[in-house]
Amino acid sequence: MKSILVLGAGRSSSAVINYLLDYARARNMLVVVGDVSQAAARDRIGGHSSGQAVAFDIRDLQQSAETIAHADVVVSLLPAHYHPAVAGICIEHRKHLVTASYVSDDMKAMHQHASDLSLIFLNECGLDPGIDHMSAIQVIDRIRASGCELSGFESFTGGLIAPETDPDNPWRYKFTWNARNVVMAGQSTARYLHEGQHKYIPYQQLFLRTTPVVVPGHPAFEGYANRDSLKYLDAYGLKNVSTMLRGTLRYKGFCSAWNILVQLGCCEDTYELSDVATMTHRDFINRFVAGASADSVEQKVMMKFSLEKNSEALGKLRWSGLFSDEKVGLDSGTPAAVLEHILNKKWKMNAGDNDLVVMWHRFTWTEKGRKKAIEASMVVKGEDAVNTAMARTVGIPMGIATRLILEGKISQRGVMIPVSPEIYEPALAELRSYGIMLNEREVDS
Amino acid sequence: MKSILVLGAGRSSSAVINYLLDYARARNMLVVVGDVSQAAARDRIGGHSSGQAVAFDIRDLQQSAETIAHADVVVSLLPAHYHPAVAGICIEHRKHLVTASYVSDDMKAMHQHASDLSLIFLNECGLDPGIDHMSAIQVIDRIRASGCELSGFESFTGGLIAPETDPDNPWRYKFTWNARNVVMAGQSTARYLHEGQHKYIPYQQLFLRTTPVVVPGHPAFEGYANRDSLKYLDAYGLKNVSTMLRGTLRYKGFCSAWNILVQLGCCEDTYELSDVATMTHRDFINRFVAGASADSVEQKVMMKFSLEKNSEALGKLRWSGLFSDEKVGLDSGTPAAVLEHILNKKWKMNAGDNDLVVMWHRFTWTEKGRKKAIEASMVVKGEDAVNTAMARTVGIPMGIATRLILEGKISQRGVMIPVSPEIYEPALAELRSYGIMLNEREVDS
Repeated sequence: MKSILVLGAGRSSSAVINYLLDYARARNMLVVVGDVSQAAARDRIGGHSSGQAVAFDIRDLQQSAETIAHADVVVSLLPAHYHPAVAGICIEHRKHLVTASYVSDDMKAMHQHASDLSLIFLNECGLDPGIDHMSAIQVIDRIRASGCELSGFESFTGGLIAPETDPDNPWRYKFTWNARNVVMAGQSTARYLHEGQHKYIPYQQLFLRTTPVVVPGHPAFEGYANRDSLKYLDAYGLKNVSTMLRGTLRYKGFCSAWNILVQLGCCEDTYELSDVATMTHRDFINRFVAGASADSVEQKVMMKFSLEKNSEALGKLRWSGLFSDEKVGLDSGTPAAVLEHILNKKWKMNAGDNDLVVMWHRFTWTEKGRKKAIEASMVVKGEDAVNTAMARTVGIPMGIATRLILEGKISQRGVMIPVSPEIYEPALAELRSYGIMLNEREVDS
Repeated sequence: MKSILVLGAGRSSSAVINYLLDYARARNMLVVVGDVSQAAARDRIGGHSSGQAVAFDIRDLQQSAETIAHADVVVSLLPAHYHPAVAGICIEHRKHLVTASYVSDDMKAMHQHASDLSLIFLNECGLDPGIDHMSAIQVIDRIRASGCELSGFESFTGGLIAPETDPDNPWRYKFTWNARNVVMAGQSTARYLHEGQHKYIPYQQLFLRTTPVVVPGHPAFEGYANRDSLKYLDAYGLKNVSTMLRGTLRYKGFCSAWNILVQLGCCEDTYELSDVATMTHRDFINRFVAGASADSVEQKVMMKFSLEKNSEALGKLRWSGLFSDEKVGLDSGTPAAVLEHILNKKWKMNAGDNDLVVMWHRFTWTEKGRKKAIEASMVVKGEDAVNTAMARTVGIPMGIATRLILEGKISQRGVMIPVSPEIYEPALAELRSYGIMLNEREVDS
């Protein structure tokens, strides 16, 4: 009996596990779900006849190897830094591997070895990275097939909340994914290509230099640049592109408010704050502004950033309770840890909340001497707190990729990302049946 | 014959070497100057009968040990990261050590060992750290002796240029010390104490949150905070102080112009820029602003920072050639390396230039229920390009400390900084004879 091993049963694992269970049932296969909590694995399977829950801890390499040895394909939802260990065992026991994580240098180094053993190590096969690659390269290949060459590509993806969720939340944002990563986002200089020039945006400018993003039928969005937009030039075969920018998408107004926290130094993670145990939210902000009195923290922030009392940015900070006298509720922490803890009080997903995934691409090229531009966008709404848009858009592509591997539909071998037609064509077609698809429109170039 | 070993004959070694040569001549001692360039060591000695030049490379530990074994006291002017190696040999061969560098964790770890061997490892005995400690603690001890307790201490020191040097230079600044350190200054969050509260200033705020500094008879200065102002609370015995801030001093207006370079990201050292070989100064700045055209770089900077065309800050950048079409002249480099190279074209000390060292302290305390404040300041002007104020104010304290050690005037043992009266009283008295002294004045508290 063929067996699929899914590693990790945490938040956002539901969609890929459900996809694979349904696939396995019809084909008499087994889906083994491994998690440090066997109970969590059991919960995810929910009594499905094709599922089996096991305790799995990648830090126990011997036991991990025994579990992996029984699988035909391994789907890893573990934190990215565990993937080299998983991949090492997959090489040893000759197993294919699917992840939604960025290809690390360690992973890249296994390419030849995996290729020699005829293994598929398919990474970046979730939402972002994942659907963004697949949907972008499909358009790029089509433009290329028409004899034209892409001149510009911009792409932003974000995990937001649906309009009816928490309608008074002025950020229009909650933590739908890793909260710590959200607080720490952007701390390395971003690099991108603009009209042939290499451009650099340091952290202190990142949330000030945003790109407006329009998706018809939705409120205005904005995007900020991700760390290195240039690294996909080769993967996408974009040798002559003059503009290349990838980034993160938020509702318009998020970035200018977040920028205040960045400028104050609230997102730093390099040192421990003193006296966290007795600290209120207001005290926390007061650490980062001049002057003694904590009473006037809000005024000091207004002065510093030239904000009106009823400005949108200040309203967002106020709504998040950053000027309140509530105790932080931690014993210690870095600024980033304290900020995450404060924000989580309002930004935690509650029962009834629905998330919203938004992806947007812009392609420009010249056709018969005329400049052309297409914008493609996707909006996916979560169904409930378990079947989130994030879980579905990350998980279903991984499920489809696993299916393609089991059915022998992928001929490529080694470490790869989903940019070849044999993967993206069937994957995008099947995603469409789940309502996960991009809509294109021609726009002014 | 007693022997003093001076390690390092670079820029700014002249004053300490001259001091020690004069001292040695009268007492039939020998001053051995060791440098990787024996010729440089010979130059510094200048044929003085009490001097001897040797080749010295701390990376050759065996030869270094042989040289150190012959000395009675070692004065190290080597880069700070070599001091643990020097100190290790000093322990092995039981030699006293004097440096002007901050006490590193490695150095601190040697305290018990040095103390057990009855050795003096005196650090932070130059200008800043050095004279700042000695002059501050003298006042603090005096206030304490009057039965009062210091409530506030602020201190700023800077190496600037004398008014007649380069009078058209709007920064009133040149590289009189380590240029790389100037470009990289402040990249860690600064911490200080303000009216009982711990405060944090991230890099992106550092050059915006300056303290005005007034020295009678001089143009206005300003100070920005150094990394950790709290680490001297214990060393100074300041248990109840509510305000403590140490920092770097510049002429007023320096910081707001420098802040532009910080905000743009020009001071980063974490990645290599592309295409440095073909880059002009203007191209360099253009990498950090939005928009393609390099022609309008100055306008883009004006817009971004809301600057008028004839504003002082913009004038400083323009004077430094940052908008010029001159080639950078490097093959590769990080932003910080390229910026240092560009700035050095105008900020290099030339023959005829004189430097200026300025130190300023502010002490506050309560005496018989009344708030009191004293400001103490020192201005030392360089004599020429070799006998700079920086070389004299760093070197003479080290020379005096060496004399005190040779004469058995220091009873303390182990790793120390010059905050005890047995060091600071004779040192400050002798520095006064060199015209190196602080003037105090009572001010409004």
